[in-house]
Amino acid sequence: MGDAIAHNHEENHLKSSDLLRDVVIGMSDGLTVPFALAAGLSGAVVSSGIIVIAGIAEIAAGSIAMGLGGYLAGKTEQDHYKSEVRREYDEVENLRHIEIQETKEFFANIGLSAELQEQATEEIAKDKDRWVDFMMKYELGLEKPDPKRATKSALNIGMSYVVGGIIPLSPYFFIDHSTEALKYSVAATLLCLFIFGYFKSRVTGVNVWWGAIRVMMIGAIAAAAAYGVAKLFGTNG
Amino acid sequence: MGDAIAHNHEENHLKSSDLLRDVVIGMSDGLTVPFALAAGLSGAVVSSGIIVIAGIAEIAAGSIAMGLGGYLAGKTEQDHYKSEVRREYDEVENLRHIEIQETKEFFANIGLSAELQEQATEEIAKDKDRWVDFMMKYELGLEKPDPKRATKSALNIGMSYVVGGIIPLSPYFFIDHSTEALKYSVAATLLCLFIFGYFKSRVTGVNVWWGAIRVMMIGAIAAAAAYGVAKLFGTNG
Repeated sequence: MGDAIAHNHEENHLKSSDLLRDVVIGMSDGLTVPFALAAGLSGAVVSSGIIVIAGIAEIAAGSIAMGLGGYLAGKTEQDHYKSEVRREYDEVENLRHIEIQETKEFFANIGLSAELQEQATEEIAKDKDRWVDFMMKYELGLEKPDPKRATKSALNIGMSYVVGGIIPLSPYFFIDHSTEALKYSVAATLLCLFIFGYFKSRVTGVNVWWGAIRVMMIGAIAAAAAYGVAKLFGTNG
Repeated sequence: MGDAIAHNHEENHLKSSDLLRDVVIGMSDGLTVPFALAAGLSGAVVSSGIIVIAGIAEIAAGSIAMGLGGYLAGKTEQDHYKSEVRREYDEVENLRHIEIQETKEFFANIGLSAELQEQATEEIAKDKDRWVDFMMKYELGLEKPDPKRATKSALNIGMSYVVGGIIPLSPYFFIDHSTEALKYSVAATLLCLFIFGYFKSRVTGVNVWWGAIRVMMIGAIAAAAAYGVAKLFGTNG
Protein backbone atom coordinates (compact mmCIF):
# COMPACT_ATOMS: atom_id res chain seq x y z
CA MET A 1 0.00 0.00 0.00
CA GLY A 2 2.75 2.44 0.93
CA ASP A 3 4.48 1.38 -2.24
CA ALA A 4 1.42 2.09 -4.34
CA ILE A 5 1.16 5.60 -2.94
CA ALA A 6 4.83 6.28 -3.47
CA HIS A 7 4.53 4.99 -7.02
CA ASN A 8 1.52 7.12 -7.88
CA HIS A 9 3.19 10.09 -6.32
CA GLU A 10 6.19 9.64 -8.55
CA GLU A 11 4.08 9.37 -11.68
CA ASN A 12 2.40 12.65 -10.81
CA HIS A 13 5.62 14.43 -11.68
CA LEU A 14 5.08 14.37 -15.41
CA LYS A 15 8.31 13.70 -17.21
CA SER A 16 8.62 13.36 -20.95
CA SER A 17 9.90 9.99 -22.09
CA ASP A 18 12.79 9.90 -24.54
CA LEU A 19 10.52 8.93 -27.44
CA LEU A 20 8.15 11.77 -26.70
CA ARG A 21 11.02 14.21 -26.47
CA ASP A 22 12.31 13.09 -29.89
CA VAL A 23 8.88 13.39 -31.49
CA VAL A 24 8.47 16.88 -30.04
CA ILE A 25 11.89 17.97 -31.34
CA GLY A 26 11.33 16.58 -34.82
CA MET A 27 7.71 17.55 -35.29
CA SER A 28 8.14 21.02 -33.85
CA ASP A 29 10.63 21.99 -36.56
CA GLY A 30 9.01 19.75 -39.18
CA LEU A 31 5.68 21.54 -38.89
CA THR A 32 7.23 25.01 -38.68
CA VAL A 33 10.14 25.27 -41.12
CA PRO A 34 8.69 23.64 -44.28
CA PHE A 35 5.47 25.55 -43.57
CA ALA A 36 7.29 28.87 -43.38
CA LEU A 37 9.40 28.04 -46.43
CA ALA A 38 6.32 27.17 -48.52
CA ALA A 39 4.55 30.30 -47.30
CA GLY A 40 7.63 32.38 -48.11
CA LEU A 41 7.92 30.99 -51.62
CA SER A 42 4.19 31.57 -52.16
CA GLY A 43 4.98 35.24 -51.73
CA ALA A 44 7.55 35.10 -54.53
CA VAL A 45 6.51 32.49 -57.12
CA VAL A 46 3.10 31.74 -58.65
CA SER A 47 3.42 28.07 -59.57
CA SER A 48 3.11 25.41 -56.88
CA GLY A 49 5.53 23.11 -58.74
CA ILE A 50 8.69 24.81 -57.57
CA ILE A 51 7.34 25.05 -54.01
CA VAL A 52 6.71 21.31 -53.93
CA ILE A 53 10.29 20.66 -55.05
CA ALA A 54 11.74 23.15 -52.57
CA GLY A 55 9.50 21.75 -49.82
CA ILE A 56 10.56 18.18 -50.48
CA ALA A 57 14.22 19.19 -50.65
CA GLU A 58 13.78 21.00 -47.33
CA ILE A 59 12.07 18.01 -45.70
CA ALA A 60 14.84 15.68 -46.91
CA ALA A 61 17.51 18.13 -45.76
CA GLY A 62 15.87 18.96 -42.45
CA SER A 63 14.97 15.41 -41.44
CA ILE A 64 18.45 14.10 -42.22
CA ALA A 65 20.21 17.06 -40.61
CA MET A 66 18.08 16.79 -37.46
CA GLY A 67 18.12 13.01 -37.39
CA LEU A 68 21.88 12.79 -37.79
CA GLY A 69 22.20 15.70 -35.41
CA GLY A 70 20.28 13.67 -32.82
CA TYR A 71 22.51 10.68 -33.52
CA LEU A 72 25.63 12.76 -33.13
CA ALA A 73 24.34 14.34 -29.92
CA GLY A 74 23.68 10.87 -28.51
CA LYS A 75 27.13 9.62 -29.49
CA THR A 76 28.81 12.75 -28.14
CA GLU A 77 26.99 12.31 -24.84
CA GLN A 78 28.30 8.75 -24.60
CA ASP A 79 31.88 9.74 -25.45
CA HIS A 80 31.73 12.60 -23.00
CA TYR A 81 30.37 10.36 -20.25
CA LYS A 82 33.07 7.74 -20.82
CA SER A 83 35.89 10.29 -20.77
CA GLU A 84 34.52 11.87 -17.58
CA VAL A 85 34.24 8.47 -15.88
CA ARG A 86 37.88 7.77 -16.69
CA ARG A 87 38.84 11.18 -15.32
CA GLU A 88 36.89 10.64 -12.10
CA TYR A 89 38.52 7.22 -11.51
CA ASP A 90 41.87 8.86 -12.09
CA GLU A 91 41.07 11.64 -9.63
CA VAL A 92 39.69 9.31 -6.97
CA GLU A 93 42.99 7.46 -7.26
CA ASN A 94 45.47 10.34 -7.54
CA LEU A 95 43.75 13.45 -6.15
CA ARG A 96 41.95 11.75 -3.30
CA HIS A 97 42.14 14.70 -0.91
CA ILE A 98 40.45 17.00 -3.43
CA GLU A 99 37.69 14.51 -4.17
CA ILE A 100 37.15 14.05 -0.43
CA GLN A 101 36.86 17.82 -0.12
CA GLU A 102 34.34 17.99 -3.00
CA THR A 103 32.24 15.22 -1.55
CA LYS A 104 32.15 16.99 1.81
CA GLU A 105 31.18 20.23 0.06
CA PHE A 106 28.26 18.44 -1.58
CA PHE A 107 26.96 17.35 1.81
CA ALA A 108 27.58 20.81 3.24
CA ASN A 109 25.59 22.36 0.41
CA ILE A 110 22.55 20.19 0.97
CA GLY A 111 22.58 21.22 4.63
CA LEU A 112 24.22 18.46 6.65
CA SER A 113 26.15 19.25 9.83
CA ALA A 114 29.95 19.13 9.85
CA GLU A 115 29.88 15.85 11.71
CA LEU A 116 27.55 14.14 9.26
CA GLN A 117 29.50 15.56 6.29
CA GLU A 118 32.56 13.81 7.63
CA GLN A 119 30.84 10.50 8.28
CA ALA A 120 28.88 10.40 5.01
CA THR A 121 32.00 11.19 2.97
CA GLU A 122 33.90 8.48 4.77
CA GLU A 123 31.22 5.90 3.98
CA ILE A 124 30.94 6.85 0.32
CA ALA A 125 34.70 6.90 -0.23
CA LYS A 126 34.95 3.28 0.90
CA ASP A 127 33.65 1.88 -2.40
CA LYS A 128 35.47 3.40 -5.39
CA ASP A 129 32.87 2.42 -8.02
CA ARG A 130 30.08 3.84 -5.95
CA TRP A 131 32.03 6.99 -5.21
CA VAL A 132 32.74 7.63 -8.91
CA ASP A 133 29.10 6.93 -9.67
CA PHE A 134 28.11 9.48 -7.05
CA MET A 135 30.52 12.13 -8.35
CA MET A 136 29.34 11.60 -11.93
CA LYS A 137 25.73 12.10 -10.95
CA TYR A 138 25.91 14.82 -8.35
CA GLU A 139 29.16 16.72 -8.91
CA LEU A 140 28.95 16.69 -12.71
CA GLY A 141 25.23 16.10 -13.15
CA LEU A 142 25.79 13.38 -15.76
CA GLU A 143 23.51 10.37 -16.18
CA LYS A 144 24.81 7.19 -17.80
CA PRO A 145 23.46 7.34 -21.38
CA ASP A 146 21.64 4.42 -23.03
CA PRO A 147 23.99 3.03 -25.75
CA LYS A 148 21.11 2.31 -28.17
CA ARG A 149 19.68 5.76 -27.66
CA ALA A 150 21.61 7.56 -30.44
CA THR A 151 20.25 5.39 -33.27
CA LYS A 152 16.68 5.32 -31.97
CA SER A 153 16.78 9.05 -31.43
CA ALA A 154 17.95 9.69 -35.00
CA LEU A 155 15.10 7.66 -36.48
CA ASN A 156 12.42 9.15 -34.22
CA ILE A 157 13.47 12.74 -34.84
CA GLY A 158 13.89 12.25 -38.58
CA MET A 159 10.53 10.49 -39.03
CA SER A 160 8.72 13.09 -36.95
CA TYR A 161 10.19 15.83 -39.10
CA VAL A 162 8.96 14.14 -42.28
CA VAL A 163 5.46 13.61 -40.86
CA GLY A 164 5.31 17.21 -39.68
CA GLY A 165 6.68 18.58 -42.94
CA ILE A 166 4.22 16.80 -45.22
CA ILE A 167 1.24 18.57 -43.64
CA PRO A 168 2.01 22.16 -44.74
CA LEU A 169 3.25 20.94 -48.11
CA SER A 170 0.32 18.73 -49.11
CA PRO A 171 -2.01 21.46 -50.49
CA TYR A 172 0.68 22.43 -52.99
CA PHE A 173 0.55 18.93 -54.46
CA PHE A 174 -3.06 19.42 -55.51
CA ILE A 175 -3.48 23.15 -56.11
CA ASP A 176 -1.45 24.74 -58.90
CA HIS A 177 -1.75 28.36 -57.87
CA SER A 178 0.57 28.96 -54.94
CA THR A 179 -1.40 31.68 -53.10
CA GLU A 180 -4.51 29.48 -53.31
CA ALA A 181 -2.61 26.49 -51.91
CA LEU A 182 -1.16 28.72 -49.21
CA LYS A 183 -4.61 29.32 -47.69
CA TYR A 184 -5.18 25.60 -47.14
CA SER A 185 -1.60 25.15 -45.95
CA VAL A 186 -2.02 27.92 -43.36
CA ALA A 187 -5.33 26.51 -42.12
CA ALA A 188 -4.11 22.91 -41.91
CA THR A 189 -0.74 23.75 -40.35
CA LEU A 190 -2.00 26.20 -37.74
CA LEU A 191 -4.59 23.64 -36.68
CA CYS A 192 -1.92 20.94 -36.41
CA LEU A 193 0.44 23.29 -34.56
CA PHE A 194 -2.35 24.06 -32.11
CA ILE A 195 -3.07 20.36 -31.50
CA PHE A 196 0.64 19.60 -31.31
CA GLY A 197 1.18 22.50 -28.89
CA TYR A 198 -1.67 21.21 -26.74
CA PHE A 199 -0.15 17.75 -26.35
CA LYS A 200 3.37 19.09 -26.01
CA SER A 201 2.21 21.28 -23.14
CA ARG A 202 0.53 18.33 -21.44
CA VAL A 203 3.85 16.49 -21.54
CA THR A 204 5.86 19.41 -20.19
CA GLY A 205 3.17 20.17 -17.60
CA VAL A 206 2.40 23.80 -18.48
CA ASN A 207 -1.01 25.35 -19.18
CA VAL A 208 -2.24 23.49 -22.26
CA TRP A 209 -4.25 26.25 -23.97
CA TRP A 210 -1.60 28.89 -23.51
CA GLY A 211 1.01 26.39 -24.67
CA ALA A 212 -1.03 25.49 -27.74
CA ILE A 213 -1.42 29.15 -28.69
CA ARG A 214 2.29 29.84 -28.17
CA VAL A 215 3.35 26.99 -30.47
CA MET A 216 0.83 28.10 -33.10
CA MET A 217 2.04 31.69 -32.87
CA ILE A 218 5.66 30.70 -33.52
CA GLY A 219 4.64 28.95 -36.73
CA ALA A 220 2.51 31.90 -37.82
CA ILE A 221 5.25 34.46 -37.13
CA ALA A 222 7.94 32.39 -38.87
CA ALA A 223 5.69 31.89 -41.92
CA ALA A 224 4.69 35.57 -42.07
CA ALA A 225 8.32 36.67 -41.83
CA ALA A 226 9.41 34.24 -44.53
CA TYR A 227 6.54 35.41 -46.74
CA GLY A 228 7.48 39.06 -46.26
CA VAL A 229 11.20 38.53 -46.82
CA ALA A 230 10.70 36.39 -49.92
CA LYS A 231 8.21 38.86 -51.39
CA LEU A 232 10.72 41.66 -50.86
CA PHE A 233 13.56 39.79 -52.54
CA GLY A 234 11.32 38.20 -55.14
CA THR A 235 10.14 41.60 -56.36
CA ASN A 236 13.48 43.36 -56.25
CA GLY A 237 15.83 40.55 -57.24
CA MET B 1 47.20 26.97 -2.83
CA GLY B 2 44.67 24.24 -2.17
CA ASP B 3 42.04 26.57 -3.55
CA ALA B 4 44.00 27.17 -6.74
CA ILE B 5 44.31 23.43 -7.33
CA ALA B 6 40.63 22.83 -6.68
CA HIS B 7 39.78 25.65 -9.04
CA ASN B 8 41.96 24.38 -11.87
CA HIS B 9 40.65 20.92 -11.32
CA GLU B 10 37.10 22.12 -11.74
CA GLU B 11 37.93 23.97 -14.94
CA ASN B 12 39.40 20.81 -16.39
CA HIS B 13 35.90 19.39 -16.66
CA LEU B 14 35.03 21.22 -19.84
CA LYS B 15 31.45 22.36 -19.78
CA SER B 16 29.76 24.35 -22.51
CA SER B 17 28.44 27.71 -21.41
CA ASP B 18 24.87 28.65 -22.26
CA LEU B 19 25.97 31.06 -24.99
CA LEU B 20 28.17 28.45 -26.60
CA ARG B 21 25.36 25.93 -26.47
CA ASP B 22 23.01 28.38 -28.21
CA VAL B 23 25.56 29.17 -30.91
CA VAL B 24 26.13 25.47 -31.51
CA ILE B 25 22.38 24.79 -31.78
CA GLY B 26 21.74 27.69 -34.15
CA MET B 27 24.81 27.39 -36.33
CA SER B 28 24.61 23.62 -36.60
CA ASP B 29 21.21 23.79 -38.31
CA GLY B 30 21.94 27.13 -39.98
CA LEU B 31 24.94 25.73 -41.81
CA THR B 32 23.25 22.44 -42.68
CA VAL B 33 19.63 23.06 -43.67
CA PRO B 34 19.95 26.09 -45.98
CA PHE B 35 22.99 24.39 -47.50
CA ALA B 36 21.07 21.20 -48.20
CA LEU B 37 18.06 23.14 -49.49
CA ALA B 38 20.21 25.16 -51.91
CA ALA B 39 22.00 22.01 -53.04
CA GLY B 40 18.66 20.25 -53.49
CA LEU B 41 17.21 23.06 -55.57
CA SER B 42 20.38 23.16 -57.66
CA GLY B 43 19.47 19.65 -58.75
CA ALA B 44 16.07 20.82 -59.94
CA VAL B 45 16.31 24.41 -61.20
CA VAL B 46 18.94 26.09 -63.37
CA SER B 47 18.65 29.73 -62.31
CA SER B 48 20.20 30.87 -59.04
CA GLY B 49 17.49 33.54 -58.57
CA ILE B 50 14.84 31.19 -57.22
CA ILE B 51 17.41 29.47 -54.98
CA VAL B 52 18.37 32.79 -53.42
CA ILE B 53 14.72 33.54 -52.68
CA ALA B 54 14.09 30.06 -51.30
CA GLY B 55 17.29 30.25 -49.27
CA ILE B 56 16.43 33.60 -47.75
CA ALA B 57 12.89 32.44 -46.98
CA GLU B 58 14.36 29.36 -45.32
CA ILE B 59 16.85 31.40 -43.27
CA ALA B 60 14.06 33.73 -42.13
CA ALA B 61 11.80 30.78 -41.34
CA GLY B 62 14.47 28.69 -39.68
CA SER B 63 16.02 31.44 -37.57
CA ILE B 64 12.64 32.62 -36.28
CA ALA B 65 11.35 29.10 -35.70
CA MET B 66 14.50 28.08 -33.84
CA GLY B 67 14.86 31.38 -32.01
CA LEU B 68 11.27 31.40 -30.83
CA GLY B 69 11.59 27.69 -30.14
CA GLY B 70 14.50 28.48 -27.85
CA TYR B 71 12.49 31.23 -26.19
CA LEU B 72 9.56 28.90 -25.66
CA ALA B 73 11.78 26.16 -24.31
CA GLY B 74 13.27 28.62 -21.81
CA LYS B 75 9.82 29.83 -20.73
CA THR B 76 8.50 26.29 -20.47
CA GLU B 77 11.46 25.33 -18.31
CA GLN B 78 10.68 28.22 -15.97
CA ASP B 79 6.97 27.41 -15.77
CA HIS B 80 7.75 23.77 -15.19
CA TYR B 81 10.25 24.59 -12.46
CA LYS B 82 7.81 26.90 -10.68
CA SER B 83 4.98 24.36 -10.77
CA GLU B 84 7.27 21.63 -9.45
CA VAL B 85 8.50 23.87 -6.62
CA ARG B 86 4.89 24.49 -5.57
CA ARG B 87 4.22 20.78 -5.70
CA GLU B 88 7.26 19.95 -3.60
CA TYR B 89 6.31 22.53 -0.94
CA ASP B 90 2.85 21.01 -0.89
CA GLU B 91 4.24 17.51 -0.51
CA VAL B 92 6.73 18.46 2.19
CA GLU B 93 3.76 19.90 4.06
CA ASN B 94 1.10 17.25 3.42
CA LEU B 95 2.90 14.05 2.46
CA ARG B 96 5.78 14.39 4.86
CA HIS B 97 6.20 10.65 5.49
CA ILE B 98 6.61 9.96 1.75
CA GLU B 99 9.11 12.77 1.28
CA ILE B 100 11.06 11.49 4.31
CA GLN B 101 11.07 8.06 2.68
CA GLU B 102 12.30 9.48 -0.64
CA THR B 103 15.06 11.44 1.03
CA LYS B 104 16.21 8.32 2.86
CA GLU B 105 16.15 6.40 -0.41
CA PHE B 106 18.40 9.00 -1.97
CA PHE B 107 20.98 8.51 0.76
CA ALA B 108 20.59 4.74 0.55
CA ASN B 109 21.24 4.89 -3.21
CA ILE B 110 24.46 6.82 -2.88
CA GLY B 111 25.69 4.21 -0.41
CA LEU B 112 25.19 5.55 3.10
CA SER B 113 24.55 3.20 6.02
CA ALA B 114 21.04 2.94 7.51
CA GLU B 115 22.13 4.97 10.51
CA LEU B 116 23.52 7.85 8.45
CA GLN B 117 20.48 7.77 6.12
CA GLU B 118 18.32 8.39 9.17
CA GLN B 119 20.48 11.19 10.59
CA ALA B 120 21.07 12.97 7.28
CA THR B 121 17.37 12.92 6.44
CA GLU B 122 16.54 14.29 9.85
CA GLU B 123 18.96 17.19 9.40
CA ILE B 124 17.76 18.07 5.91
CA ALA B 125 14.08 17.92 6.88
CA LYS B 126 14.62 20.57 9.55
CA ASP B 127 14.75 23.46 7.06
CA LYS B 128 11.81 23.33 4.62
CA ASP B 129 13.30 25.66 1.99
CA ARG B 130 16.51 23.73 1.94
CA TRP B 131 14.67 20.44 1.81
CA VAL B 132 12.57 21.51 -1.18
CA ASP B 133 15.72 22.82 -2.85
CA PHE B 134 17.35 19.47 -2.28
CA MET B 135 14.38 17.51 -3.65
CA MET B 136 14.19 19.74 -6.73
CA LYS B 137 17.83 19.18 -7.53
CA TYR B 138 18.36 15.57 -6.60
CA GLU B 139 14.97 13.85 -6.72
CA LEU B 140 13.75 15.67 -9.85
CA GLY B 141 17.09 16.73 -11.33
CA LEU B 142 15.84 20.27 -11.97
CA GLU B 143 18.09 23.35 -11.78
CA LYS B 144 16.61 26.76 -11.12
CA PRO B 145 16.50 28.42 -14.56
CA ASP B 146 17.84 31.94 -15.20
CA PRO B 147 14.80 34.19 -15.87
CA LYS B 148 16.60 36.23 -18.56
CA ARG B 149 17.77 33.10 -20.28
CA ALA B 150 14.76 32.63 -22.60
CA THR B 151 15.18 35.98 -24.38
CA LYS B 152 18.96 35.77 -24.64
CA SER B 153 18.70 32.21 -25.90
CA ALA B 154 16.22 33.21 -28.62
CA LEU B 155 18.51 35.95 -29.94
CA ASN B 156 21.68 33.84 -29.82
CA ILE B 157 20.13 30.87 -31.57
CA GLY B 158 18.40 32.99 -34.21
CA MET B 159 21.48 35.07 -35.02
CA SER B 160 23.70 32.00 -35.23
CA TYR B 161 21.25 30.43 -37.66
CA VAL B 162 21.38 33.52 -39.89
CA VAL B 163 25.18 33.66 -39.82
CA GLY B 164 25.42 29.94 -40.58
CA GLY B 165 22.80 30.12 -43.33
CA ILE B 166 24.39 32.98 -45.27
CA ILE B 167 27.55 30.97 -45.93
CA PRO B 168 26.08 28.24 -48.18
CA LEU B 169 23.80 30.76 -49.88
CA SER B 170 26.35 33.44 -50.74
CA PRO B 171 27.72 31.91 -53.98
CA TYR B 172 24.19 31.93 -55.44
CA PHE B 173 24.11 35.71 -55.04
CA PHE B 174 27.00 36.12 -57.47
CA ILE B 175 26.79 33.15 -59.83
CA ASP B 176 23.73 32.85 -62.06
CA HIS B 177 24.03 29.20 -63.01
CA SER B 178 22.94 27.08 -60.04
CA THR B 179 25.19 24.03 -60.56
CA GLU B 180 28.18 26.36 -60.88
CA ALA B 181 27.26 28.19 -57.66
CA LEU B 182 26.70 24.82 -55.97
CA LYS B 183 30.39 23.94 -56.34
CA TYR B 184 31.49 27.01 -54.38
CA SER B 185 28.68 26.51 -51.89
CA VAL B 186 29.77 22.91 -51.25
CA ALA B 187 33.43 23.90 -50.84
CA ALA B 188 32.72 26.87 -48.54
CA THR B 189 30.11 25.08 -46.42
CA LEU B 190 32.01 21.83 -45.93
CA LEU B 191 35.05 23.84 -44.88
CA CYS B 192 32.95 25.84 -42.40
CA LEU B 193 31.24 22.70 -41.11
CA PHE B 194 34.65 21.15 -40.55
CA ILE B 195 35.91 24.19 -38.62
CA PHE B 196 32.62 24.41 -36.72
CA GLY B 197 32.76 20.70 -35.91
CA TYR B 198 36.31 21.10 -34.65
CA PHE B 199 35.39 23.83 -32.17
CA LYS B 200 32.14 22.16 -31.19
CA SER B 201 34.10 19.01 -30.34
CA ARG B 202 36.55 20.98 -28.25
CA VAL B 203 33.65 22.32 -26.21
CA THR B 204 32.03 18.92 -25.72
CA GLY B 205 35.40 17.31 -25.01
CA VAL B 206 35.42 14.59 -27.69
CA ASN B 207 38.15 13.89 -30.25
CA VAL B 208 38.30 17.08 -32.31
CA TRP B 209 39.25 15.61 -35.72
CA TRP B 210 36.73 12.83 -35.58
CA GLY B 211 34.13 15.34 -34.37
CA ALA B 212 34.94 17.75 -37.20
CA ILE B 213 34.59 14.97 -39.79
CA ARG B 214 31.31 13.78 -38.31
CA VAL B 215 29.74 17.26 -38.44
CA MET B 216 30.96 17.74 -42.01
CA MET B 217 29.58 14.33 -43.03
CA ILE B 218 26.11 15.18 -41.72
CA GLY B 219 26.01 18.29 -43.89
CA ALA B 220 27.28 16.40 -46.93
CA ILE B 221 24.77 13.57 -46.51
CA ALA B 222 21.83 15.94 -45.97
CA ALA B 223 22.82 18.00 -49.03
CA ALA B 224 23.33 14.93 -51.21
CA ALA B 225 19.96 13.49 -50.18
CA ALA B 226 18.17 16.78 -50.81
CA TYR B 227 19.89 17.05 -54.20
CA GLY B 228 18.85 13.51 -55.15
CA VAL B 229 15.26 13.88 -53.96
CA ALA B 230 14.78 17.27 -55.64
CA LYS B 231 16.28 15.99 -58.91
CA LEU B 232 13.91 13.03 -58.83
CA PHE B 233 10.82 15.18 -58.25
CA GLY B 234 12.08 18.00 -60.46
CA THR B 235 12.35 15.69 -63.47
CA ASN B 236 9.13 13.77 -62.94
CA GLY B 237 6.87 16.46 -61.52
